[in-house]
Amino acid sequence: MLKGGAKVDSFEVRLFDVDFDELTVILNVNDAAALRVNVGDRVKIRFGQKEANARVSLSRTYVGKGEVGVCRGLRDVLGLTEGERIVLEPVMFPRSSEYIHKKMRGEELSAGEIRSIIRDIARRELSRVEVAAFVLAEQFKGMTDSEIESLTLAMIESGERIEFKERAFDKHSIGGVPGNKVSLLIVPIVAASGLLIPKTSSKAITSPSGTADTMEVLAPVNFKAEEFKEIAERTRGIIAWGGSLNIVPTDDLIIRVEHPLMIDPVPQMIASILAKKVAVGIDNMVLDIPIGEGCKTRDEEEARNLAVKFIKIARKLGIKMQCGITYGGQPVGHTIGPALEAKEALEALAGKGPLSLVEKSTALAGMILEMGEAAMAGRGQEVAREILRSGRALSKMREIIEAQGGDSRVKPSDIPLGSHVTTVNAESDGYVVRVDNEAIKLVARAAGAPVDKGAGVILRFKRGYKVSRGDTLMEIYSERESRLSKAAALAAELVPVQIEGMLLGKI
Amino acid sequence: MLKGGAKVDSFEVRLFDVDFDELTVILNVNDAAALRVNVGDRVKIRFGQKEANARVSLSRTYVGKGEVGVCRGLRDVLGLTEGERIVLEPVMFPRSSEYIHKKMRGEELSAGEIRSIIRDIARRELSRVEVAAFVLAEQFKGMTDSEIESLTLAMIESGERIEFKERAFDKHSIGGVPGNKVSLLIVPIVAASGLLIPKTSSKAITSPSGTADTMEVLAPVNFKAEEFKEIAERTRGIIAWGGSLNIVPTDDLIIRVEHPLMIDPVPQMIASILAKKVAVGIDNMVLDIPIGEGCKTRDEEEARNLAVKFIKIARKLGIKMQCGITYGGQPVGHTIGPALEAKEALEALAGKGPLSLVEKSTALAGMILEMGEAAMAGRGQEVAREILRSGRALSKMREIIEAQGGDSRVKPSDIPLGSHVTTVNAESDGYVVRVDNEAIKLVARAAGAPVDKGAGVILRFKRGYKVSRGDTLMEIYSERESRLSKAAALAAELVPVQIEGMLLGKI
Repeated sequence: MLKGGAKVDSFEVRLFDVDFDELTVILNVNDAAALRVNVGDRVKIRFGQKEANARVSLSRTYVGKGEVGVCRGLRDVLGLTEGERIVLEPVMFPRSSEYIHKKMRGEELSAGEIRSIIRDIARRELSRVEVAAFVLAEQFKGMTDSEIESLTLAMIESGERIEFKERAFDKHSIGGVPGNKVSLLIVPIVAASGLLIPKTSSKAITSPSGTADTMEVLAPVNFKAEEFKEIAERTRGIIAWGGSLNIVPTDDLIIRVEHPLMIDPVPQMIASILAKKVAVGIDNMVLDIPIGEGCKTRDEEEARNLAVKFIKIARKLGIKMQCGITYGGQPVGHTIGPALEAKEALEALAGKGPLSLVEKSTALAGMILEMGEAAMAGRGQEVAREILRSGRALSKMREIIEAQGGDSRVKPSDIPLGSHVTTVNAESDGYVVRVDNEAIKLVARAAGAPVDKGAGVILRFKRGYKVSRGDTLMEIYSERESRLSKAAALAAELVPVQIEGMLLGKI
Repeated sequence: MLKGGAKVDSFEVRLFDVDFDELTVILNVNDAAALRVNVGDRVKIRFGQKEANARVSLSRTYVGKGEVGVCRGLRDVLGLTEGERIVLEPVMFPRSSEYIHKKMRGEELSAGEIRSIIRDIARRELSRVEVAAFVLAEQFKGMTDSEIESLTLAMIESGERIEFKERAFDKHSIGGVPGNKVSLLIVPIVAASGLLIPKTSSKAITSPSGTADTMEVLAPVNFKAEEFKEIAERTRGIIAWGGSLNIVPTDDLIIRVEHPLMIDPVPQMIASILAKKVAVGIDNMVLDIPIGEGCKTRDEEEARNLAVKFIKIARKLGIKMQCGITYGGQPVGHTIGPALEAKEALEALAGKGPLSLVEKSTALAGMILEMGEAAMAGRGQEVAREILRSGRALSKMREIIEAQGGDSRVKPSDIPLGSHVTTVNAESDGYVVRVDNEAIKLVARAAGAPVDKGAGVILRFKRGYKVSRGDTLMEIYSERESRLSKAAALAAELVPVQIEGMLLGKI
């Protein structure tokens, strides 16, 4: 039974050009038995001074004894090449998994413990299951303000940072409302006033279009940190994709587990938003908190509580914040989907925008103008409207599009929309009593948004409008026939625009 | 921008002989883009009438366009061979993930919802992250008795069932105490009385030896359902590994996420234990609930509450249950590790066992004898002691060992122990004030248990014993020199056996 002291621990690298959701190695079953590891266990890999953890998968034939299959991610982390030798050993749980366990018990974590968790998420030393446990513990047990502050600071440490020599302003929405293209108006309005507004935005995860997706219809949005800074300082405004800047890379790793769990715990949401803002040097910002059906906050009280929490933690991190509570019970403007929204934003900048879009954009822009003393107290929205009306916002937007590498002469009619179109018509006379945010998002996504830029939805009627039988309630755009029919079927099932007659009963 | 209606959805199978922790496919990056899936997303695979879900990984080179790499697990589930064509489509979250979300919000689940979750875990349609969320929601939000009953029934549905024509008895411990080899005494005592005791047991996950690991030193423990039934009926007793019977396969999938999270939520523990018992046809059982430092239940009140819950749910499932609350603050007997424990159990059957082992075993066996009317009320332990003393338990054990395919003539001294041995000696005179369960487990595992059968620990002194400087407190056995030195170093660091002098202070 005695096997002697022989210890197999050095393995020959076989590169394996596949990307997995976690760093992965493939071991021969015999080597795995000798190392006492099984499928799904974790091993520590050492290569010179570098170390990483990976998940174990097993093969009888794909790798021989003494070999180890190395996935792309791990190759990149350690800088490995074919045939090199690496050292493997089974890992116990990292210390940080104890801290996650502590949070699961509802105890408060110290700054050091939170830093250890975030660092191990960034290094991919914690598995997806452990990251999920951390996020769920945040959801179920909550976090104190000081824990959220530590979480924010820890997340910032994991990525690059940008600093400006002057005050930098920003607007951010906590999200949930479809068609919310307001940033495409707010950024040029604020920049036209002379204030600096270096906006980072996200691509859609569950929505039909993130601000970065919409802006990308007009100009590139991927920039390195230095380019971002240079463009922002030169034009006073930029709308870039945050993901391209390598700020707060742990955010993406955390979102990857939040998404399948359909959760967005408040402490993580606050930390994630503030970390990205601090990392790009924002020190003054307006936060848009939409309320209403389908929004993250349901009523004004919840929104106010969230606002107070946000403002308090932002202040500790050196950000002066104001919150705007807005109506989010139906889409902003009439369009949903990247190209349709970019088109509507351009039209609004040219003075032909729908009221809800112009009102929301100028209200939030006005708050920023007041914060930056570019407008007197109480006069912000008025100044913002004037910047819009005068055409200065449109010229500034053209300047920004040009600086980001787009076509500054673009006209709304130049923007290509999906060529497959269908309409949903009213089946009776009546009033629109509900426009269902969730249903609209699902229909627009089924049509192909955000990946197909030209896909999406135009709402011809919104809440309170009077409609007659046969009126077109909404148009669905798609780039492919097959997606169009899926979206149309979904619209028939979900009834995103609901009508009620004046006659409510008959005896 | 229009791509036309072409839809790539049929792919050619490239078998890939690797086992992952989830069913996995490898797609070419271009195909993945066309399907709108990314690394870590899930796809549904159809092959004839069969369906399965798998996680997506990506490659530029390993699989070509139109090909799909298929891992071993998926090949087995669908019965695929090289070159066959399968259909892929992105999956939305399965309906059951909504029910998990409902539990996360703290709402009660219906029997149908729970069945849907367990079925999707069994089919591997839920990812590990989603299974983790379910188990964490059980931990944080709890479950009603009727939810636990539904959970138990759903788990039974997922596997095979065994039925006996007569009453079947069992003893189960909720675990946590090292050295708990009592089943190796209880099964032969009860079987010798004529009652049927078909015991399924587990292999160690976090402990140095599960009952199945210990029994495996004496005889094989892997049986198919029919063999299990045949042996049990013939000899009246068997000690088999539950994992070999394919009863309650979802249990293993759930344990795989509980383990890294270091949790064992009460609802899941109850359902998991009862499901396995119902599945093998048990209708009378004694549950051992140890209390004390390092046990799952800390005090008598917690143990009583757990007992009441267990008994109530067991009754609904047709199991008559009694609970024994036992002292678990230090190991049972003197040995920890498969071979050492098997040896000590054989010695105890031959009348030379330590008091703690004999007392606990006869007390629990006595409860079963009373339940089965093989002893009068209040006389069970006495009858159990007599069966042990008379040698009938030992002959029955030899019969069981023989029936399971082991050597019925085995003597304790035949059992091979690790040949590398070291001792931990007392550094001062005094009394043993603490034997640390957790530390003992870690040292025994570091020495190689449970994989190295001969590895483990002998405790020469237990709580309350008087020791003199230089006495051997514990011996560590290992099959490899390198593991022995690791275990010895750990013992020096953790001090599993703590001594305090009589002189507590000096002024």
